[in-house]
Amino acid sequence: MASISDPLVTHELSLLERFQRVRRFTDLITGPLSAEDCMVQSMPDVSPTRWHMAHTTWFFETFILCHEEGSVFDQEFNYLFNSYYNAIGKQFPRPQRGLISRPSLERIKEYRSEVDRRMADFLAGPNVTQSIAQAVLIGLNHEQQHQELMLTDIKHVLSCNPTLPVYREGSFASGVTSSDHWSEFEEGMYEIGAFEGFAFDNESPRHRRFQESFRVAGSPVTCGQWIEFIEAGGYQRPNHWLAMGWTAVQEQQWDAPLYWVRQNDSWMVFTLAGLVPVRPEWPVCHVSYFEADAFARWSGSRLPTEFEWEVASREGAGNQFADQLWSAGQALHPAAEQPTRGAINQMMGSVWEWTSSSYAAYPGYSPPAGALGEYNGKFMCNQYVLKGGSVATSRDHVRPTYRNFFPPDARWQFSGLRLAH
Amino acid sequence: MASISDPLVTHELSLLERFQRVRRFTDLITGPLSAEDCMVQSMPDVSPTRWHMAHTTWFFETFILCHEEGSVFDQEFNYLFNSYYNAIGKQFPRPQRGLISRPSLERIKEYRSEVDRRMADFLAGPNVTQSIAQAVLIGLNHEQQHQELMLTDIKHVLSCNPTLPVYREGSFASGVTSSDHWSEFEEGMYEIGAFEGFAFDNESPRHRRFQESFRVAGSPVTCGQWIEFIEAGGYQRPNHWLAMGWTAVQEQQWDAPLYWVRQNDSWMVFTLAGLVPVRPEWPVCHVSYFEADAFARWSGSRLPTEFEWEVASREGAGNQFADQLWSAGQALHPAAEQPTRGAINQMMGSVWEWTSSSYAAYPGYSPPAGALGEYNGKFMCNQYVLKGGSVATSRDHVRPTYRNFFPPDARWQFSGLRLAH
Amino acid sequence: MASISDPLVTHELSLLERFQRVRRFTDLITGPLSAEDCMVQSMPDVSPTRWHMAHTTWFFETFILCHEEGSVFDQEFNYLFNSYYNAIGKQFPRPQRGLISRPSLERIKEYRSEVDRRMADFLAGPNVTQSIAQAVLIGLNHEQQHQELMLTDIKHVLSCNPTLPVYREGSFASGVTSSDHWSEFEEGMYEIGAFEGFAFDNESPRHRRFQESFRVAGSPVTCGQWIEFIEAGGYQRPNHWLAMGWTAVQEQQWDAPLYWVRQNDSWMVFTLAGLVPVRPEWPVCHVSYFEADAFARWSGSRLPTEFEWEVASREGAGNQFADQLWSAGQALHPAAEQPTRGAINQMMGSVWEWTSSSYAAYPGYSPPAGALGEYNGKFMCNQYVLKGGSVATSRDHVRPTYRNFFPPDARWQFSGLRLAH
Amino acid sequence: MASISDPLVTHELSLLERFQRVRRFTDLITGPLSAEDCMVQSMPDVSPTRWHMAHTTWFFETFILCHEEGSVFDQEFNYLFNSYYNAIGKQFPRPQRGLISRPSLERIKEYRSEVDRRMADFLAGPNVTQSIAQAVLIGLNHEQQHQELMLTDIKHVLSCNPTLPVYREGSFASGVTSSDHWSEFEEGMYEIGAFEGFAFDNESPRHRRFQESFRVAGSPVTCGQWIEFIEAGGYQRPNHWLAMGWTAVQEQQWDAPLYWVRQNDSWMVFTLAGLVPVRPEWPVCHVSYFEADAFARWSGSRLPTEFEWEVASREGAGNQFADQLWSAGQALHPAAEQPTRGAINQMMGSVWEWTSSSYAAYPGYSPPAGALGEYNGKFMCNQYVLKGGSVATSRDHVRPTYRNFFPPDARWQFSGLRLAH
Repeated sequence: MASISDPLVTHELSLLERFQRVRRFTDLITGPLSAEDCMVQSMPDVSPTRWHMAHTTWFFETFILCHEEGSVFDQEFNYLFNSYYNAIGKQFPRPQRGLISRPSLERIKEYRSEVDRRMADFLAGPNVTQSIAQAVLIGLNHEQQHQELMLTDIKHVLSCNPTLPVYREGSFASGVTSSDHWSEFEEGMYEIGAFEGFAFDNESPRHRRFQESFRVAGSPVTCGQWIEFIEAGGYQRPNHWLAMGWTAVQEQQWDAPLYWVRQNDSWMVFTLAGLVPVRPEWPVCHVSYFEADAFARWSGSRLPTEFEWEVASREGAGNQFADQLWSAGQALHPAAEQPTRGAINQMMGSVWEWTSSSYAAYPGYSPPAGALGEYNGKFMCNQYVLKGGSVATSRDHVRPTYRNFFPPDARWQFSGLRLAH
Repeated sequence: MASISDPLVTHELSLLERFQRVRRFTDLITGPLSAEDCMVQSMPDVSPTRWHMAHTTWFFETFILCHEEGSVFDQEFNYLFNSYYNAIGKQFPRPQRGLISRPSLERIKEYRSEVDRRMADFLAGPNVTQSIAQAVLIGLNHEQQHQELMLTDIKHVLSCNPTLPVYREGSFASGVTSSDHWSEFEEGMYEIGAFEGFAFDNESPRHRRFQESFRVAGSPVTCGQWIEFIEAGGYQRPNHWLAMGWTAVQEQQWDAPLYWVRQNDSWMVFTLAGLVPVRPEWPVCHVSYFEADAFARWSGSRLPTEFEWEVASREGAGNQFADQLWSAGQALHPAAEQPTRGAINQMMGSVWEWTSSSYAAYPGYSPPAGALGEYNGKFMCNQYVLKGGSVATSRDHVRPTYRNFFPPDARWQFSGLRLAH
Repeated sequence: MASISDPLVTHELSLLERFQRVRRFTDLITGPLSAEDCMVQSMPDVSPTRWHMAHTTWFFETFILCHEEGSVFDQEFNYLFNSYYNAIGKQFPRPQRGLISRPSLERIKEYRSEVDRRMADFLAGPNVTQSIAQAVLIGLNHEQQHQELMLTDIKHVLSCNPTLPVYREGSFASGVTSSDHWSEFEEGMYEIGAFEGFAFDNESPRHRRFQESFRVAGSPVTCGQWIEFIEAGGYQRPNHWLAMGWTAVQEQQWDAPLYWVRQNDSWMVFTLAGLVPVRPEWPVCHVSYFEADAFARWSGSRLPTEFEWEVASREGAGNQFADQLWSAGQALHPAAEQPTRGAINQMMGSVWEWTSSSYAAYPGYSPPAGALGEYNGKFMCNQYVLKGGSVATSRDHVRPTYRNFFPPDARWQFSGLRLAH
Repeated sequence: MASISDPLVTHELSLLERFQRVRRFTDLITGPLSAEDCMVQSMPDVSPTRWHMAHTTWFFETFILCHEEGSVFDQEFNYLFNSYYNAIGKQFPRPQRGLISRPSLERIKEYRSEVDRRMADFLAGPNVTQSIAQAVLIGLNHEQQHQELMLTDIKHVLSCNPTLPVYREGSFASGVTSSDHWSEFEEGMYEIGAFEGFAFDNESPRHRRFQESFRVAGSPVTCGQWIEFIEAGGYQRPNHWLAMGWTAVQEQQWDAPLYWVRQNDSWMVFTLAGLVPVRPEWPVCHVSYFEADAFARWSGSRLPTEFEWEVASREGAGNQFADQLWSAGQALHPAAEQPTRGAINQMMGSVWEWTSSSYAAYPGYSPPAGALGEYNGKFMCNQYVLKGGSVATSRDHVRPTYRNFFPPDARWQFSGLRLAH
């Protein structure tokens, strides 16, 4: 079980060691993929794997190696692999990333090697000031975010192939039933937001909130519970849905979580390890905010706010992170865990948990100066906060104050939910 | 100046008198319009005037007269004029409301008369319980909301006609320049939400918030300030915009507030009284949340939260409401007022003020039982709260705790902004 | 039975008498409609009735009264009521015609009266040269085309109203079963195109075609035959469809002709006289070219070319025209006729018959000079020729050389088919 | 100069030799492309190269090797690589072909090898009946059609990459100015359609046409002439355009042929050999039917009909075919030729020439029985006929009776035009 109070288990590593460790995990993730696989953009939200590989490298070249002598690898890359930094320059249109077959994957790998070599030299050198080190940390966390996207994007890509290819074989951990424990928290003033270690700007400033008393469920909502919702007509009647949610159900013809397939009267699910039967004790995932919210109302509960979740996380537990599952040869899919008595189980790793909080600035927040100021602030609109990390998140990437965010109809992340009262 | 502590200036009237007064104002509003005008749906958000006339009537027939004997006026109306109450039954598709030419306007007026007559009988009778009286009040406030929509919708309709017809002649009140006063408020626990008199469910429950200290501008942002923003390239550069906002600017080709027209190097604006020159001292209106937010950042300020606004409203003032302007023969357009020294001017009436708060449930909120539970709760997603009322709002309709809400790209309401720090 | 060799039964009338007769028929057609009905544009192809009323009037004002002194009725109308004449000036966007509520219907009627008065003066005067008289004839035929559109457009408008209003009551002529006669024509050189009397430019020049021998069916395809096609799975299997046609079937979910409604296991059809049971002996109508073509293949036949149809028309008959049905108090809907032995029945009036001919210029065709050159030529692309007229066509408007044309997915005209071999 | 009377220069080869020669040319075409290049679908009309490679192979496996023992290579391929044969089964949706990264390119090449091996065995064996040989010929011509598409599709793919990669270096043949010769043809009865050697079903049956006298230009329209059209405002004014064409100009913002780029006041063009200056003497290509038609009207001429073109082709010449240019190391781009005095130059090869003929069945045509009946007939709607072949066509693939066809807004083929009177 990951100790919540010690999220940064790697902080004794040097910056160079951390750099190399993070970069190496990208190699692991892209290992099972062919040049063809790395090309595909299956919807506008998805980027080709090769684009992620180049973009994360461009990030270090642009924001770190600018402090060092040496020419850029390829002038064109600044246009091709800039995601959304207007301060840096124009960007190649996002929905067309899948149309770019040159540079070749081989050349992108050379780009990675070359930047890795230059970064190693630079990080071993004398010019790494405190603020540059902070930018390197941002770059590493940025690459970890893209590692998660590589996994969720390639999952979507492969799901479009009628042969449903396996990304990587792996076993599924087994566990007993979920806990029916609810943890209670008293009303009072709480401090919210980042306080030590690395954090993104959107987790700051730490500030005070008055919070009324509340209860949080000891385990996330399971597939078994979701099947009850389906069988009770959850997707057939508008009763419990937000108006926009019900429109989404009808327009996108949702009748189960993304990747669920009905076969011979039972539910199968497409995972990164292929098509497998849905197991009732697993946390449900690949549901939208709309579905999470409707389920919560149907069950007579509600979603927690992001503040409640953060307060509750002091009792949180969880051990299904991408790097750990990978090392253990397990499938990158949220499975059951042995519940810890009295704890709030599977709160970290497993599935990102939708909260009812619209993604907004904390009081006193202002984006950092410079291009990196575009990292988070400009997306604070029409998105909802998710907390806790998932099976596609690295263990040292996430923390209780971490704020992930997606639009309310997004389903291709490992997104689930936990109930509150 | 409207006293904020006495928003319900009409509460000494009987329910029947209030009913008749509200219904009569609809007649005033529709008075200048031909049968042809009342047909048009100029975009999906807009409803034909005749639809508003019938729908508000259907509301009383469905939710009040069901408690009384007597047959419904026309069985078809329950399908044609139900807006979004799934609990009542299926609805005619909203974007097609402009295709329905029967019943005739004449018949819709008969419908209104007949329901008025039956309502008068009913309200004079013995069966008006407390809960029915509450539903009548909802019906009246509902009709007032639709009165505002009738005005903003017909404005949009007429703006599509290249001849730019006048809806109703009227003078524009003059005033001096805006105040540069800022009101300060101290940190502390504040009570937020409805506490007496009529209120919608979304204003409840009244609850405690911890609020850090803040300052609010003594006047709304003016057209003169907005012209500075335009001339500074506000619509040309992405710097201050939310990512979604900048996309909207480009896709919808915004370069000024809605209804502004450039003629011979000066700005004109289409109003309900026709095309007139923009006056720099007027509050700016018909701007989206995206524009309001970008302006605030550009000016080095920010939008207030809805909670800050509500706290600040105890010093608020304002006197431009629809019913008052109508009686006074003035144009239904936000003009300047004589600022009150030390007050937060034009906070009520004039323009709805965008806040930075996403529209969400208050802690402990749950929608009422029955069909009226669909009134507010199911829209709590991807919308932002506006406060204060506008020149299209009736004076006794609005109050400091009132929460209006629209999507962040909506511009056809009388929406402006006030800065905070 | 209309004599095909004498299509212009009115040619003994003076130009002024013809003008007044045609204009009066527009009054008859618009008689049953309210100001509200006249506003609606139910799809981009449909224009509001009031637009037709103004546009046909604008045509005379622009192309005839320009030869006379006197000011235009309203300067704005040249923009609002120009359909597609680039040579005249810019046009108000077609899909937004339904958004224009001013001028009022009353004012449009004044416009008609004023232009009628000026036209009467002008036609009685000395300045009507041969070429102006020709332009007047074009204007009259133009108005007759719009009379047909007024009927088909208002039918579509009313069909969008769930109460399915009746446009005008009327009886349905009865007849016996359709003829099983086939007329044969020998191979040889034939002359095709206009030769005497009024004709549109697209019917010229008259020219020679070599035609192989062919046979044409003695009656149009009936509703009874169409029901067989439906029951044989005609709309369920791609076998007999053009690729584009099959795409249309799936995207637009066609499973019967437009306006057919399944009720209690039998087919009903919405007509201008309301919803009535489909009668098997009636000619089928409101089918697209795609459907006509698929039916013909399914039945082992084919559609005739426009040249075959024109050659065959010398044996053609038919008596269901709009003006005749109107006078007789009959419904404007294709009904059965008493077949004439050995004739090609219901070839004129009843339904426009799709031919397999793409709408193209005749050899040597060039559009007339001036704005009227835009009348026909610029539409010669991706449309198919229909022949014969319909129940919405005036008797003196149509002739065997007449070429009507619509895109292959159009269904809102009275379009049917006749088989050939 | 290719002799028009001898189009099938390879007919002395055995069927096996022809099979191997055609299949080998696909290897040449795909040679310069990486696995990544072969993945891209840059618009719905374009298919990934790898899809073409597999589909052409599937064609032989499905229509020829079904006559032989042995199992199919992979059951999934029948779904993945069927283009549009409903009689064979369901097809993977065309616009999603670019999403399929498995099978790998390597595996598709194995598929080709395996089918080649089995085809060689089969063609060397005793079971090749006359009708099977005919199906093999269809398969070879089918692969040649896809070879042309591979070239035009990859050109479009590479043009989407801002680095504008070179597909294959090559020189550009030089020539003098175009001929100003016009060939005249007398009125009379002509035979049209296939009469000996291989031909597609849509070239039959051979039949008689009466043709009035006409003249055809001795050379195709050149880039120099097109620049005059541009500079005369051809793309700025609607005068000469079909209504649908003018809509396309505005919606798709055409201001020059596809692949033309304005750089420093001169025109460049993207070719398969990279970006090069436009040469005025080259035939213009990558223009739509709409542009070809507008140019012809602007120049006071017209496009020929397909029948005129076919009649005229007896005086036609041309020598720029894909296989010849490839062998000669020349760029696959239409360049100038030395005009032959009195001939109709560059009529074969160089550019496909738009005719004014809508693609339709010849009198008496009926599609063949079986799945191959879907090859041509079902596309006879809203397309226009092109004649003559292009630099992407193999020399032995095309002939004067050949009918190519594309929708009127298609531009990504090597499509140009020749004038007629």
